[in-house]
This record gives sequence, structure tokens and C-alpha cells, in this order.
Amino acid sequence: MKLKSTLLVSFICLATAAMAQDSLTIRKIYDEALVNGKSYENLHYLCKNIGARLSGSANAQKAVEWGKKVMESYGFDHVFLQEVMVPHWVRGAKEEAFIIDGSNKIKVPVAALGMSVSTPADGLTAEVIEVHSLKQLDTLGEAAIKGKIVFFNRPFDPRFIETMIAYGTAGDQRFMGPSAAAKYGAVGVIVRSLTESLDNFPHTGATLYNPKGNNIPAAAISTLGANQLSALLKQKGAGIKFFFKQSSHHLPDTLSYNVVGELTGTENPNKFITVGGHLDSWDLAEGAHDDGTGVTGALEAVRILKTLGYKPKNTIRVVFFMNEENGDKGGLKYAELAANNKEQHIAAIETDFGGFTPRGFGFTGLTNAQLKNLAAWKNLFEPYGSEKLVAGGGGSDIGPLKEKAPGVILIGFLPDSQRYFDVHHTPNDVFENVNKRELELGSASMASLIYLIDQHGFN
Amino acid sequence: MKLKSTLLVSFICLATAAMAQDSLTIRKIYDEALVNGKSYENLHYLCKNIGARLSGSANAQKAVEWGKKVMESYGFDHVFLQEVMVPHWVRGAKEEAFIIDGSNKIKVPVAALGMSVSTPADGLTAEVIEVHSLKQLDTLGEAAIKGKIVFFNRPFDPRFIETMIAYGTAGDQRFMGPSAAAKYGAVGVIVRSLTESLDNFPHTGATLYNPKGNNIPAAAISTLGANQLSALLKQKGAGIKFFFKQSSHHLPDTLSYNVVGELTGTENPNKFITVGGHLDSWDLAEGAHDDGTGVTGALEAVRILKTLGYKPKNTIRVVFFMNEENGDKGGLKYAELAANNKEQHIAAIETDFGGFTPRGFGFTGLTNAQLKNLAAWKNLFEPYGSEKLVAGGGGSDIGPLKEKAPGVILIGFLPDSQRYFDVHHTPNDVFENVNKRELELGSASMASLIYLIDQHGFN
Repeated sequence: MKLKSTLLVSFICLATAAMAQDSLTIRKIYDEALVNGKSYENLHYLCKNIGARLSGSANAQKAVEWGKKVMESYGFDHVFLQEVMVPHWVRGAKEEAFIIDGSNKIKVPVAALGMSVSTPADGLTAEVIEVHSLKQLDTLGEAAIKGKIVFFNRPFDPRFIETMIAYGTAGDQRFMGPSAAAKYGAVGVIVRSLTESLDNFPHTGATLYNPKGNNIPAAAISTLGANQLSALLKQKGAGIKFFFKQSSHHLPDTLSYNVVGELTGTENPNKFITVGGHLDSWDLAEGAHDDGTGVTGALEAVRILKTLGYKPKNTIRVVFFMNEENGDKGGLKYAELAANNKEQHIAAIETDFGGFTPRGFGFTGLTNAQLKNLAAWKNLFEPYGSEKLVAGGGGSDIGPLKEKAPGVILIGFLPDSQRYFDVHHTPNDVFENVNKRELELGSASMASLIYLIDQHGFN
Repeated sequence: MKLKSTLLVSFICLATAAMAQDSLTIRKIYDEALVNGKSYENLHYLCKNIGARLSGSANAQKAVEWGKKVMESYGFDHVFLQEVMVPHWVRGAKEEAFIIDGSNKIKVPVAALGMSVSTPADGLTAEVIEVHSLKQLDTLGEAAIKGKIVFFNRPFDPRFIETMIAYGTAGDQRFMGPSAAAKYGAVGVIVRSLTESLDNFPHTGATLYNPKGNNIPAAAISTLGANQLSALLKQKGAGIKFFFKQSSHHLPDTLSYNVVGELTGTENPNKFITVGGHLDSWDLAEGAHDDGTGVTGALEAVRILKTLGYKPKNTIRVVFFMNEENGDKGGLKYAELAANNKEQHIAAIETDFGGFTPRGFGFTGLTNAQLKNLAAWKNLFEPYGSEKLVAGGGGSDIGPLKEKAPGVILIGFLPDSQRYFDVHHTPNDVFENVNKRELELGSASMASLIYLIDQHGFN
């Protein structure tokens, strides 16, 4: 009994000492982020000196060069580019759109959906049919749809507390709506912007054509424009037509890059903990929250660990993924190279939900026992408000690692989600809408999680 | 044994059924807030149709009338005003200020501190002495201070995770600095704005003169202005002078009102649960977050309960307190009347930290056992992200109830604090900086807490 008790006491003492050390290190991480943080000035540079940076654009290339240079300036052990071919879609001339009510033309704000084809050069005019789901198309059939513009107008459901879920449940209209409507002979598609906010911003974002289908032009309409169109349709029915003109098109695929920086592991250099966001952004704005805060926040997490003199056991990598918005080619390439190079991936953290106050992280791949063990980490995060450590999470850039690096734990960074869809994929996604402290707290929470994973793994 | 087991099972079943009912009711509350919410449009009216509403002003009176009218329109059981005499301070002409560096005059943004006296009509020019604490004044003494303008320049400490604590620890400079400096013969005081944000907004706010002391003029300077002044002082020392001119002054005290609306308790009409914020605001802006979101959020909490047809056991009161910003007369009057009318107060919730995403509530007056029992409520709030139920909390409007209504539990609403001091007491505290969903979630969390207290008390 005596020996057992002594062992138990020793174990408790060791565990308590480790926890005290963890607590101290995390406090240092937050202090560095909040007192000497570089994420906000990096974000300012990315937004204001580079700006919009859609895959294949000259700005995307500038962003790659900037990313590499900044990582090198921080003295990371290894900084390199991963070549990846990406689509090069361009919006062309600014879109035009009108609701046509007899001789009355009412201008409404639209933006071509990413990857959409153009309308005819003179634009496209047709009767409008409003629908609220993809399923409704099947019910209506070709008789009702052929030759018309299908107007998807199912709004965000405001009852979801996390807006990501509202996005997920309304998103099929944008992702699949155009290809689904084309099947029944629609000539164009207008999609209500994916936001709860009532305003005049059209929210762009990729649509996915059926490779075997007919590609019809598709655009997002602002929520206020959608309400106006819907009200007129209710009032006047089939008399209402819609006109839109866009010249969006594809250029040849382009060579681009993921940007990678490493702190080499002192014990397990071939085991990796990745943190990253995507460097590309839509063309309409500066891509501040989507995903400038992701790349600068992830970069900052690794900078902080480096600055504090932390020597990781495993290799810590920050990755600026290319082409998340319209192809995911960077994420696919990263996973492919991980497999080719026989890298062992412990965990990958993705930050692509904006730079808002961090609430926690979602984990995919943990056993129930491992999830339960996160309770100790919850206590460490609680003073910082980032203690929501829950099952489920990841992201589209790290997703391909699941297959290519079996055993990896995929982790999604979870900031407060309330404001994200006010700015998402709009001209309003600008630096001025990012709060410095919120961004800094996010980078500190990621640095803390990386530290804990590196020290303890998922026991 | 059998009987005991049966009783235990019955008890557990009853408790589980009650919790399921609570969970359903709370879901209904959130749905009402998010789908049919009125707080955002009420806030819009208060900010845009009334605007700044400092105690004693014509706008404050308009706000009182509006508040009463809206409460009546919601069909509350009882709506009334509580008379209260309030100070009537006015800013006068727009302030002017320069750093004087030899023949070079550098314009900097300042705003008279609330309750400050004016400078001489032509303004005030003097040498500047920079200090970082009240204690430092005692060390420096009259020899160093007499005839000078004291410049308080201790910045917010960014390491505090909750910005309220940074405000609390830097705030003595504004609250007490002018009276402390006057003791040593200072002729004026300039205080670094109480924010971490680096910008050109001076943040006003009340200063407290010593009733027996010499009242010297005091103004807030923007953080960028403060940095510029400090840099010049470091570089050139005593050569630097400061000029400022303000015509702020007091008019005679004015009759004003708290606005009160009630849902009368069906079992205990003389037992009260109060929720409120302050109706007055500083004169520089619309008082959106401070405290338009407080009054419209508290109002919404009671409107939701009314709309859902909830019949409270105890009387539920929403209170729009008058004069929180420069006198707290409304809060004092409310407590005084509570004592005079022999009201029994169960709990009072104050919302005065802005309309940001709710995180939880802080409780003052609970026993340790009662605090532990909040765990069940934490579970109910968790799906809504508002589960931080902690010891300590209240507010200056409900504070006087502690003495006047013994046994009351004082509760502070705790929203995310990161953005509050970007706008606090500045011209930037406008409707546009409030997010609709964040405001709505706050009102739902308050309605849910009121419901739980009304149903279960603090067992």
C-alpha cells in the first residue's frame, strides 16, 4: 500500500507540476500575442498592400511572395513553396441586373457566382420562377422551368445559433442550384445571398457545375434585391422578368503555390502539427476575415512559439493554402505531398471562420476517451474564454489529409460566428471590420493548442 | 428501501421533466428573439430618431417618452415613470487643443471630461508634466506640478483578457486624476483616452471632483494624440506646452425619470425580478452600445416573455435607468423607492457592457452552494454559448439595491468584451457598430435567465 500511495502521490505531483507549467506557458503565449502581436499589421499589409487575391491572379502571386518573405524574416527553420496548378477564373466587367416590371426597370445588385460562365454579351432576359429548394425543381419539372431564370430564395434560418449551420443548410442553393436548374432547361440562375443580413451586398462564392451538364450563367443577388424581386413576383406573377449581364470566364490553369514554414521538431522531425488558413480570397474585396485573419493568425501562432524560444518535439508547420475558394487544389496538393513524403501527421488545425473572438476548437478523429481527456485542456483555456473543445471540426484545406495521412486529428478553429456572414464574400470583407484583440486572441489560442498537442499528444 | 427508491426515482423524473420543460421554453425564447426580434429596430429608433441623450437634455426627455410609449404598446401590465432630479451638464462649444512645440502648433483631438469645468474663455496654456499614476503625483509634489497641466498617460494593459478589467485598472486616471492633480496646484488635466485602440477619438466620461477641492478643467485626449504628446515630451522635455479650450459647464438640475414596465406576478406580485440598462448616454454620439443595446435588450427580454404568453410567478420589471453616466441618480432613486414601497427584490440584472455576443452572467449575493447549483442552468445555456455563470457581477444602476433591498441577488450581463472600448464614450458609438444577431442573442439570454429565476429561484 505504501509504495502504491507514494507512486500515486508522485504521479499527482508530476501531473500538477506539468499543468502548472502548461498554464504558465499559455499565459506567456497570450502576453506575447496581446503585447507584441504582429498579426494585425500583417493583416493590414495583406489587405491594403496586396488586396483581393483570387487564385491565378497577379495578386495571388504577390501574396505568395509576401508570405514566404515574412516567414523567412521570422527565422523559421525551413520555408518553402509547394507547386500547385490552380483554376484561373475572372469576373470580367462589373455585372448589371434589372427586375423588369413592364416598362419599369429596377436596378438590383448582383455578382456572378465564382466559376460561373458568362451570359450572352448583351445579357440575358427571361421570366423568373422563384423556388425555395432543389427538390422543388423536381416537382416543378421542365414544363415550369424551361427557358426561365430560376431564382433560389430560401433565406438563412436565423434560429441556428452558429451561423455556419445556417450557411451549411442554405448553401446547396448556391453550390448545386445552377446545375440542378440546368437539368430542367433553365437559362440562368439567381441565388439569394448567403447571409441573414438585409443589405445591398451580393455575396459571391463558388458554384459547382455538373461536368456532364449544361453550364448556365449564375449570379448572387443581394438580400434586399431578393426581397424586392420576391415581393414583385408575389404581386404581379408571371409578368415579371429579370435581366442580368456578366462576362465571367475561365483563363488557362495557372501555376501557384502553398507557402509553408516550419519549426523543426527536436525529437520527431518527421511528425507534423499543421496550422493554416487559405491565402487566396474572392476578387470582390480584401479577403480580411476570409481568410486574411486565418493566414495571419496561423502565422502568428507559430511566430509566438518561435519568439518564446519554444523548441517543439514535433515539427510545427504553418501553411498558407492556395485555392480554397474555387477548387481546393492547395489542400489536395498538401495531402498528396504528405503521403508521397511519408510524413506522419499528428494534427492539423484549420482557421477559416473569420478572425472573431475565439471560443474553442472542434476535433475530428479523437476517440471518446480522448475527447473526455480534453477536460484538462478546457481548464487551461477557460481563463481565455476559448474552452469550447468539442467533437467534430476540420476544414476543406486539411480535409484531404484524413485519407492521405491516416491517424491525423483534424481540428477546426471556432471563433464567434455571429458577424461572419455580414461580410463573407462581399466588398465589405475589409481590414476595418477586423478587431485587433479578437485576432490576437485567436492566434494565442492556436499557439496554445499547438503547444499542448506537441507536449502531450492526445492521451 | 423500496419507498426511498421510489421517491428517489420520482424526484429524478420530476427534475428531468422540469429541465426538459425549461429547455423547451428557452428554445422558444431564442426563436422569438431571432425570428421576430424587435430590439434591433428599437435600437435604430433610439439611435437615429432620438440620438445622444445626456441627462437633462431635451433628447433625454424624448427618450423617456419613447420608452414609456413602447412599453405601453407591448401591453405590459403596468408602465410608469419614477421622478428623479438629475445633473444637467453641457459640453458647450467644440473643444480645441494644441501641442505647442516652440512656434509649431500641433492640433490634437480632445473632449472635455463629463462634469468638468471650462477653461478660461481664451483657453489654457501651460507646461505639461506626464505621469502614469495618481501615486506619482504624491512623489512629484507641488514643486513639480504647480501651474502645470498634468497629463495622465498610463495606457490600457492589453494583457487582461476581459477589457473591463483594463478599464477598471486604468480608470482612476479619469475618475480621480483631475481632483488629485488639483491638490498639488495643477491648472488643468489631460487624460489618455480609456481604450487600447490607437485612433483619433477622444473618449469622454465622468470625472469626480473632490467637493472640498479646487475644480480644474479636464479633458480626454485621443490615444494617438497622447502618443504624439508623450513622444515630444521625451524628445524635448520641458519645452513642450499644451493648450486647450473648452466651455463645458453645469445648468440647474433637471427633473427626469426612470421608465418602468411590469408583468405582474401571478403568485407574488410584491416580489420583483428587475432587468435594466441606462437610458441616458454621453453627448458625443448615439449611445448605441452604451447603453442603447442595454435598454432595448432588457426591454426585448420582457417583451419576449409577454409575447410567449408567459405568466410569471413574481413581478418582472424592465427599468430604463436615468443618469448612469454622470450621477447614478436613477439607480439611487429606484433603490430608494423599492425601500419606501417595501418591495421584495429577488434579483436585478443590469446590462451595461454593450450589445455583443452574450457569454453569461456574473452573480453577487449567492452562497457557495447556490453558485454550485447554477451548474444545471449552465447546461441549459450551453447550446446558446451563454453558459459562463460566475461569481461577482452587478452594475452601478442596480448596486444601490444591495443596501435598500437586502437579499437581492445582483447580476451583471456579460457579453464579449473585446470591442467595447473601441467605441465607448466616443462619436463612434453608433447603431452601425451593433450586430443584430449579437443583440438578439443577448436579449434571449436575459429572458431565459429571468424565466429560470422566476421558476426556480436560487436553490
